Parts: sequence; C-alpha cells; structure tokens
Amino acid sequence: MTTVAILSTYLPFGHLAPMLKEADPEIDVVVWPDPACVEAEVAACLHPPAHIYERMPNLKLIHCVSAGVDSILVDQVVGPVPVCRVVDPTLADGMIQYVLWGVLHFHRRFDQALVNQRDHAWRRLPRTNASSFRVGVMGLGQLGKPVAIQLVALGYAVSGWARTPGRIDGVTAFAGEGQFSDFLKDLDVVVCTLPLTAETRGILNAKAFAAMKPGAAVIACGRGEHLVPSDLVAALRNGHLRGALLDVFAQEPLPPDDALWSLPGVIVTPHMASTASDAEIVRQVAANIHNYREGKPLAFPVDLSCGY
Amino acid sequence: MTTVAILSTYLPFGHLAPMLKEADPEIDVVVWPDPACVEAEVAACLHPPAHIYERMPNLKLIHCVSAGVDSILVDQVVGPVPVCRVVDPTLADGMIQYVLWGVLHFHRRFDQALVNQRDHAWRRLPRTNASSFRVGVMGLGQLGKPVAIQLVALGYAVSGWARTPGRIDGVTAFAGEGQFSDFLKDLDVVVCTLPLTAETRGILNAKAFAAMKPGAAVIACGRGEHLVPSDLVAALRNGHLRGALLDVFAQEPLPPDDALWSLPGVIVTPHMASTASDAEIVRQVAANIHNYREGKPLAFPVDLSCGY
Repeated sequence: MTTVAILSTYLPFGHLAPMLKEADPEIDVVVWPDPACVEAEVAACLHPPAHIYERMPNLKLIHCVSAGVDSILVDQVVGPVPVCRVVDPTLADGMIQYVLWGVLHFHRRFDQALVNQRDHAWRRLPRTNASSFRVGVMGLGQLGKPVAIQLVALGYAVSGWARTPGRIDGVTAFAGEGQFSDFLKDLDVVVCTLPLTAETRGILNAKAFAAMKPGAAVIACGRGEHLVPSDLVAALRNGHLRGALLDVFAQEPLPPDDALWSLPGVIVTPHMASTASDAEIVRQVAANIHNYREGKPLAFPVDLSCGY
Repeated sequence: MTTVAILSTYLPFGHLAPMLKEADPEIDVVVWPDPACVEAEVAACLHPPAHIYERMPNLKLIHCVSAGVDSILVDQVVGPVPVCRVVDPTLADGMIQYVLWGVLHFHRRFDQALVNQRDHAWRRLPRTNASSFRVGVMGLGQLGKPVAIQLVALGYAVSGWARTPGRIDGVTAFAGEGQFSDFLKDLDVVVCTLPLTAETRGILNAKAFAAMKPGAAVIACGRGEHLVPSDLVAALRNGHLRGALLDVFAQEPLPPDDALWSLPGVIVTPHMASTASDAEIVRQVAANIHNYREGKPLAFPVDLSCGY
C-alpha cells in the first residue's frame, strides 16, 4: 500500500480520495487536516500547509495537482524529494468552452435576457450575425491562440493582440503597447488570456477601458492581477462598459464581501475556465505513484531550478 | 415615394422604420397603430391587426417579416395582393449559437456558478471533458442537423433522434417512437429543434422526462407546443431534472404571471434563438419594394394555396 496525503488549504480536493482508491486499490488516501497526513509517502497538493514537507519523514514524492507549481514551492523546504505536476492536455478545450460561453452570452444578449427574466419581461432581443460582432483576444499563446481560431471558425470578427507580431488565419493582428489602443477601439468583447508578467500586470485598467467603445464587455480568464478592479467597477457603474465575465482574481477565493460579487453586469466564476479535470488529476497522480513504486521515470517532473 | 405600414400586434417592429428609410430614401414608414397605416401601399407585418388588409385601399404588397407566414394569413382576406416572406440564410447560425450557449451553460456548470454568485459563494466546479458530456438533438432538419454537426466539432458525445433514420458523421442515430426512450436515457442535455406536427405536440412530457436520467437538462427551441409545461415544472420541482433553457412557448409573449419565469433552474428567453435579423429583414423588404416599383419578380413569394 502507498499512502497519499491530499494537502490543500485552498481548494477542497477531498473528493479525489475515493477516485484515487478506485484508480488503484493499492493506494490509501488521507486528507488534510487529518494528522495522519504526516505519515504519508506521497503528497498530492495545491497550496499545502506551511512547512508540511519537513514534518513528513516518509515523503518520497510531491505531486502538484495543477500545472502551475508556484503554490507548492513557496516557503517550503522540498529537499531531495522529486516533484511532479499535472499537465492536462485538455486545458485549451476548457478555455475555448469558457470564452465561447462568454462571447455567446454577450453576442446573443443572454445577459439582457436574464435581467428581463427577473422582471418577468418579454422584451425582444434582436439578433446580429457573428460576422458583425468583434472579439479581441489578448494573448495568443497556448490558450489564446486556440480560442481565437475557434472564434474565427464560428464566424466572429476576431482581432488578436500580443507582445510580438504573429499571424493566425482570419485574425486581425496587433502587437505591442503602441497598437494596444487601436486593437481595443472597435471591439464588442475583449478577452484576456495573457500570462502575468511585469508588463501585463494591471493592463485591464481605466485607460484600457476608456479606449474601448461604449457598451463593450470584458472576459478575464488570464490571471487576476491583470485587472484593476476599482477601474472596472467605475467603468461599469458609469455605464461605459456593458458587463464583465471574471474567472480570476488577485485574491482567490474572492472574499464574500467583495463588491464584484453583486455588481450589476458582472459574472463571477470560481477560476473554473481551464483547471485540470478531476479525472485527469487522478489518472496522472495514480500513474506517477505506479511509476514511483516500479522505479520507472516520473511523468511531468518539475525542474526546481527554473520553477516549472 | 412608397409608404410602408409596419403592422404588428405582437412584437414591436417600430425600430425598423429608420432602418428602412436609411436603406431606401424613397420609402416612407408608418407604424401601427398610426391611423395613416391604412393608406400605405406596402404592409410589412407579423400578427397584423384583424381584417386590416381590407381597410387598405392602396395595398400592393404584403411582406411578412419572418419565414413562417401563418400569423399573417389567419382570418385575413388577402385577395389578389402578392405576399412575400423573409428567409434569412443565417437562421441555422442563430440556432447553433443559441444551443451552443445552452450546452456550454450546463456542461461548464454556469448555472451553478450563477446560483453561487448570488450567495457570494466561491465553490469549486469541477470540469469534465466535452467527450463525456452527452447531448441529444431531437429533430435533424434544417436547424437540428447543423446544430448536431457543430456539437460534434466541439467534441461533445452527440446523439440524434428523428422521425426517420438518418446518418450524420459522429452522431449516434435513433429514429421513431420505438427508439425514443433509448435515445433519452443517457443524455446530459436534450435539445428540441423538432417541427410542430400532430406527432410531436406535447412530446416533452412527464413520460419523456422520466426516461431521462436524473440531473439531465432540457433546451427547447422548436415550438412551444412541444412542451407540457406542468410536466416540466413537476420534474424540476421534484429534482429529477437539473434545469431548462426555454425559448418558445405555446403563448408568446409568455404571460408575466407564468410560473416558468421564476422557477429555479429555468431560463426564459424571448423566442430569440433563430429569428430573422433586423438587418436581413430590412434588406429583403427594401429589395422587394424596389422589385415591386420596377416591376421585377419578387423574392420569396408565398404560395397561398399551400401556405408557405
């Protein structure tokens, strides 16, 4: 038997316990804050409790349950124990689905339909063709590029903005800070899938919102720190922006008293666009436990010197 | 100048007036209930007032603003005046967009996210792959078939049910009443795009809901008369069904006191999935007024002997 401790102070991953046991009957699972966690050989974690590894004398493998490992390395003495991560090949699919729902939500006026429903009001919502609905994608990397391609396939008028010039069939290309305002000015929906860097932190700010046309909407599914929340609140309250679909926040979980939860026009989702699926987490963690037992190479090992 | 009367006792089409004038400066527009309507040469209508045509001595052309002309022919003396309709080539696009929003809504748990937002509750919503989400499309005609094809393209597990057997790549085919329960039993979402016939009236009833698995959802965008509303209300209230996205109703507009407006799990939209776009209505009506003036053949004439 191999004992796995599920260590998360952030998201509740306890529901993975029976799934791991079903994937491999030779696995026993304990879930933090069960004190027996410190006896486990394998730590499956995201935002684990501080200094937990040094209290685990039997630890042989640390397995992050996401692709981003920053939360499991911070303030931790990892030592010689190998660290692996879960890389879900369906992440882009998840992002495509999330953005597509959001674009359709604004394009087909479901936002207005939901407001009208609250009033029991049957109000006609004219339909416009996708080809006259302009969607801009910020960031054209592993997630933004497939999103842009799918939007083109569905007939939307798609623009893309990235740090450096690139070319995607059917996508009007903009690059660099110098073209940012031009990129923004005609869009009906702006989608942010950027990575978080010094250059992109706070990029969704009052200046960007002012560059957008009245009635534009924002879909934010990169990192929470891209957004200046007070600027978004102002642009929504003064009616310049139509709405926002927000999946990421500088502080997650978003605190219950945050103004965004109940601001008209804002939809808050719990960082769900493109996280690894439970099934994939279980499959990869169970497979790596098997690899560990058999002395085989581990999948998706993390290079601690570069942090991913 | 040609005077056009916009005659609708159902949907407010008055906003088309300036669009028609912009399309052709030689057009004057009056909107019901303006008494000057009876002097017009062209009637652009949907559910016009009863017996209006016989009060219009100058009437030269009746133009329905939708593809379905039943509402403009009932209880009306049309006489020798030609009747045309608007056939929007983008109707299937509209239906695809509407259904796609609905499928993504249930697949990616936006229904739960919106409920959680009302409680300011950050609750994790696990992601499953499209390939494990089963969508069934009832009706594989001009609208249902392209919907099924698009769902396959996005990776969903798609089944189709129609009166007679058919074949669409990647779609599991069911046909006829004998296979209806088998079709329904494993679906996560059932989409109804059927035409309304004696056989399909009331097909979304208690027996159909009982044949669906617990937690299934319904998207109804065929005709309102497909649904037995009291059976849907019961299946939602007892928790068997997860939710419903409803675009069509036996009585439209849906009366303000109808229970569906505020039933948890139900989204009511105002028959917006796939109506002709304003731009296309204006384009085709203006073009036919031009044809009428020039003595050219009219586009999309209606054969009154068969009713379409």
